[in-house]
Amino acid sequence: MSDPRDERIPVAVLGATGSVGQRFVQLLARHPWFRVAEVVASERSTGKAYREAADWRLDAAVPEGAADLRIRDYRAALESPVVFSALPAEVAGEIEQRLASEGHAVLTNTRTHRMEPDVPLLIPEVNAEHVAAIEGQRRNRGWSGFIATNPNCSTIHMVLALKPLQAAFGLDAVAVTTMQAVSGAGYPGVPSLDMIDNVVPYIGDEEEKMESETKKLLGEYDGAFHPAEIVVSAQCNRVPVRDGHTECVSVRLKEPAPADEVIVAFEAFRGKPQELGLPSAPPQPVVVRREPNRPQPALDRDTHVGMSSVVGRVRPCPLLGTKFVVLGHNTVRGAAGASILNAELFKVEGLLPV
Amino acid sequence: MSDPRDERIPVAVLGATGSVGQRFVQLLARHPWFRVAEVVASERSTGKAYREAADWRLDAAVPEGAADLRIRDYRAALESPVVFSALPAEVAGEIEQRLASEGHAVLTNTRTHRMEPDVPLLIPEVNAEHVAAIEGQRRNRGWSGFIATNPNCSTIHMVLALKPLQAAFGLDAVAVTTMQAVSGAGYPGVPSLDMIDNVVPYIGDEEEKMESETKKLLGEYDGAFHPAEIVVSAQCNRVPVRDGHTECVSVRLKEPAPADEVIVAFEAFRGKPQELGLPSAPPQPVVVRREPNRPQPALDRDTHVGMSSVVGRVRPCPLLGTKFVVLGHNTVRGAAGASILNAELFKVEGLLPV
Amino acid sequence: MSDPRDERIPVAVLGATGSVGQRFVQLLARHPWFRVAEVVASERSTGKAYREAADWRLDAAVPEGAADLRIRDYRAALESPVVFSALPAEVAGEIEQRLASEGHAVLTNTRTHRMEPDVPLLIPEVNAEHVAAIEGQRRNRGWSGFIATNPNCSTIHMVLALKPLQAAFGLDAVAVTTMQAVSGAGYPGVPSLDMIDNVVPYIGDEEEKMESETKKLLGEYDGAFHPAEIVVSAQCNRVPVRDGHTECVSVRLKEPAPADEVIVAFEAFRGKPQELGLPSAPPQPVVVRREPNRPQPALDRDTHVGMSSVVGRVRPCPLLGTKFVVLGHNTVRGAAGASILNAELFKVEGLLPV
Amino acid sequence: MSDPRDERIPVAVLGATGSVGQRFVQLLARHPWFRVAEVVASERSTGKAYREAADWRLDAAVPEGAADLRIRDYRAALESPVVFSALPAEVAGEIEQRLASEGHAVLTNTRTHRMEPDVPLLIPEVNAEHVAAIEGQRRNRGWSGFIATNPNCSTIHMVLALKPLQAAFGLDAVAVTTMQAVSGAGYPGVPSLDMIDNVVPYIGDEEEKMESETKKLLGEYDGAFHPAEIVVSAQCNRVPVRDGHTECVSVRLKEPAPADEVIVAFEAFRGKPQELGLPSAPPQPVVVRREPNRPQPALDRDTHVGMSSVVGRVRPCPLLGTKFVVLGHNTVRGAAGASILNAELFKVEGLLPV
Repeated sequence: MSDPRDERIPVAVLGATGSVGQRFVQLLARHPWFRVAEVVASERSTGKAYREAADWRLDAAVPEGAADLRIRDYRAALESPVVFSALPAEVAGEIEQRLASEGHAVLTNTRTHRMEPDVPLLIPEVNAEHVAAIEGQRRNRGWSGFIATNPNCSTIHMVLALKPLQAAFGLDAVAVTTMQAVSGAGYPGVPSLDMIDNVVPYIGDEEEKMESETKKLLGEYDGAFHPAEIVVSAQCNRVPVRDGHTECVSVRLKEPAPADEVIVAFEAFRGKPQELGLPSAPPQPVVVRREPNRPQPALDRDTHVGMSSVVGRVRPCPLLGTKFVVLGHNTVRGAAGASILNAELFKVEGLLPV
Repeated sequence: MSDPRDERIPVAVLGATGSVGQRFVQLLARHPWFRVAEVVASERSTGKAYREAADWRLDAAVPEGAADLRIRDYRAALESPVVFSALPAEVAGEIEQRLASEGHAVLTNTRTHRMEPDVPLLIPEVNAEHVAAIEGQRRNRGWSGFIATNPNCSTIHMVLALKPLQAAFGLDAVAVTTMQAVSGAGYPGVPSLDMIDNVVPYIGDEEEKMESETKKLLGEYDGAFHPAEIVVSAQCNRVPVRDGHTECVSVRLKEPAPADEVIVAFEAFRGKPQELGLPSAPPQPVVVRREPNRPQPALDRDTHVGMSSVVGRVRPCPLLGTKFVVLGHNTVRGAAGASILNAELFKVEGLLPV
Repeated sequence: MSDPRDERIPVAVLGATGSVGQRFVQLLARHPWFRVAEVVASERSTGKAYREAADWRLDAAVPEGAADLRIRDYRAALESPVVFSALPAEVAGEIEQRLASEGHAVLTNTRTHRMEPDVPLLIPEVNAEHVAAIEGQRRNRGWSGFIATNPNCSTIHMVLALKPLQAAFGLDAVAVTTMQAVSGAGYPGVPSLDMIDNVVPYIGDEEEKMESETKKLLGEYDGAFHPAEIVVSAQCNRVPVRDGHTECVSVRLKEPAPADEVIVAFEAFRGKPQELGLPSAPPQPVVVRREPNRPQPALDRDTHVGMSSVVGRVRPCPLLGTKFVVLGHNTVRGAAGASILNAELFKVEGLLPV
Repeated sequence: MSDPRDERIPVAVLGATGSVGQRFVQLLARHPWFRVAEVVASERSTGKAYREAADWRLDAAVPEGAADLRIRDYRAALESPVVFSALPAEVAGEIEQRLASEGHAVLTNTRTHRMEPDVPLLIPEVNAEHVAAIEGQRRNRGWSGFIATNPNCSTIHMVLALKPLQAAFGLDAVAVTTMQAVSGAGYPGVPSLDMIDNVVPYIGDEEEKMESETKKLLGEYDGAFHPAEIVVSAQCNRVPVRDGHTECVSVRLKEPAPADEVIVAFEAFRGKPQELGLPSAPPQPVVVRREPNRPQPALDRDTHVGMSSVVGRVRPCPLLGTKFVVLGHNTVRGAAGASILNAELFKVEGLLPV
């Protein structure tokens, strides 16, 4: 299976059988820099072939390279220098810390370490300079490896849209109401009795995450994190959609701007991944649709292979000044793809232990 | 069919075969004061029995009293003193005006006349005193009858929740994002390709209606309408739900109030329909659910036979002060039931031409 | 709570917090002969008020009479002479047997005892005479009480439609393909990722149940059960519907009959519940719709309060002779309502221990 | 737009703005032999750029090559030698005949000519030899071009599965119940009120098409068509799925075969497209899944880019001998992809007018 001439960096995927874990395996299958060498899951699956342990639920087959890997358990020593984590939050803390202390670069989608004062919470287009926090983290904790996190799925797409507005006009306040896809809750996740002919106006801890993560992401790092001074209010809902979070956003800009200038700011936005030509970087982080009734999850979630956020309905808001809709794929750019883009940034920065 | 001893007031339903029209016929089937005597629809159906003309889509059979009525056409002279209208907006203007000029009390769910300066837009719990506008309307227009309107389905439920807050604390600003059911668009209405695994973040004119109607409803009438000085911003979405609009609302109160006082205001709220004991009045206009994940359309839309608004998740909003979710049945209290409650108010006020 | 003048027979509901258990509590709330006196669930809930233990998911509130009952645990001695069981199959065997041996009449929706040679599997319109098996059961087992079962939800509606055909024309072979609602799997039950934009062409053991139960139901009892000599082939699917199983049926009749005679047989069908005027008996067990596109779950599942089966599309089958669609509510007539109707039959037969 | 060095055969798409028309344009975008040179639609769109005329609803953008083509009207003379038709059946008859008489090769997905005695109804893996009918068609009708048709979307996938069984064991009788996706009805197509929490057990003319087309496809051509002597009975249902028809099939084989031999027959099946290496031919026409709960539309419809049929649950049928589930993409292999594969076959056979 593993080709000895394959010089790509071996990576491990933690929580590889879950829905974000499967997305990691899928997105890494043809990655130019990384190859999945180890798949790690709970004891229940240890020793099984990945093909059998994962109840594969994405719409293509289990990638060849991963199908025959044997599941390792969470306590195993890993050989891969780079570890992607889709662990359940309940167990992530200890395992991720141990791996970082043992020298691994841990790129995690799990929420556990996101808000810690020496852990970067990264979207490479938004705050690539927060990578610098790794140095302090290693020093503080005496680790040879490190932990870097990406935000919650609904936060990522909103913040990708907010960043160019903050840069161009200054940003003062944000109100967001989300309509989130069920894949965000994993499998089995949300019961179908909650989602046929229904909406659930509540997702545990989601509003708090959107409110706090947004400030860290849009804030500064100068040896310490300084959250952005923005008021953020979130209302989060679950709707009967498989993939793709839709978010209605209103913003108060420091310098009010008409819709056409806001659109220019969205479309002109490029970040470090685009500059560096990272393999998973979409050509445009924010794509603007001009039709009156877009973006829609069924039609727009796969824009640029699911790595772009799609904005539409940019228009004046009588209350805050500007409103729009932003949509993005919650398990690609909103989860596994986010961690992979982070890893690509670390590689170019020379920070991977390889 | 029609029992000669039946002393209930005969009413006509315009647009009787459509989805709101069917709801009128259903809700009036056992009404203590009104009986459906005439059903009116487009020429295509004229002369057919209602049973055949209506492709009945509600979950019980066509009510006996209406099933054998023959469909009359829009130009027919009507005998019923009271007319309920569920006409398409394109044709409502002229027909409703002609009937009012001929002496009929026209209670309409159609948007056409809602914002006119001498037409009351009514929610009996909210602004029963706007009934007074009828007098000026008749004088202005030289009509023996009148037109009275009820608001748009998404506006009604939000305003039922806003009224007690306005009364108790004063109301300054409102931001609302809706997740609306497909029955609001009639039949055939929204294509299923737009609603399976999808959300459509746009409903034509809906945001404008919510923004303008809310101000008229919460405003004053002293011979002229004075819209409330409130900033309202709406974002409207269609979601895969049959019945029941869910709305995420944030409000800035003039006197900030903690969640428990807001809940008390909701639960204590009663209006004219409750005082007068109108037959379609729910015991409580606003019902508060305390579970963290309610209200939900599948579980809560039929609260008090669909005539109450159901509020949940009352909590602080970092931006505007207070946020909550409100849900209600869009074709019962949000459409046909609203017009019927208006008619009941007019009857008690002695304003029906009977 | 419990009114001392209430002379209705006290009943216990086993598995009262689950989805069929909730339906029992709902349907019994205004029952003229029975009142819910005891609610029994797993240890996790013991001692809680039913209102809190049940995450109530039906579209009306928890019935007053039951809301404040304290949950008892499965090992508790019960006082109610009549016990309705919605237990999980894994635990039902022993508990139901113990209660029967202690003198209770156990009316169970659980599959465990359905196919046993001394346990009646009953649909009162279809095989009321199988009640006679109780006598042998008591003798065999030395019980003062007894166990009587009702069939699986998809079997009940098909067999209600097959019985009048068997009676009128003789029945030789049946092919059925089902499209079953998710409430049949309880809560949380089927994951939403399996039901949004999807069909699952498999329900564990369901085809086997439909094939074997049908033969017992349509067979004879003369001291022993003699299954009907009918070939039955079932294909069972789960579809994104909350309530209401839709089943496409083809039958080979012993005496071939044209569609209009088949319809006459359906509509003329009455059974013991109708003769006896049992409180939960629908006026017609099988209702025939003549529209080309009915029955549909959203429109027809609540026919006669969910206690009737609704048939449509009766037409010739090129292969077996006759085909049609049958639909019914899976948790009312298909589960809790079926057990209750059985209990009503036993009461009239003088077989309840009261 | 059109590269002069592009030597691919220019093709026209009739009905190019509809949902099957869009699928033609999408599938042809990177076709090695054909390029879309003309897009034809109803007068309403004439002269508009395709980009604007098509309300593009597939999940990637309008292909570059087609986006700027101007819509031509149905009466226009076409330059492309090959014409793909996704016309509405009401208008297809005359237009397709005119084009064939003018020398065009018309490959049509529309039902109009399918059952005519000199028109081949083709699935290249199943009855490639029926291509011979073209010669008689031209002679009969005095045409320089021709019309060739592909079957109805639900028929194609069933017949792909039946062919290897017919070849290996002989085929006597087929009973099928379908659960069909809404994209089969086009856009707007099926109303969402019919598809949220619902199933519609009826699709106009669909059962008749499945029953008659199957016999023509599995029959012989020796100068005239001889339908296969098979009894076919179909029951067709619409379910809330975007793409992918799921079909429960029971068959009586002439020589009964156990499930494992049936599976071998499915997996060994190859046809002319595979022999010839046609560009749109899937490597395997019939893919067998062994999991107990597959195939499922959300997971399996895109197997081999939507050009394969996916079979699962192969098992004994107590009534007919063998039963299984077959699933396939209804607008790819079930419509546009079917016509394109036909065109590829005609090209290799030297029958295209180029």
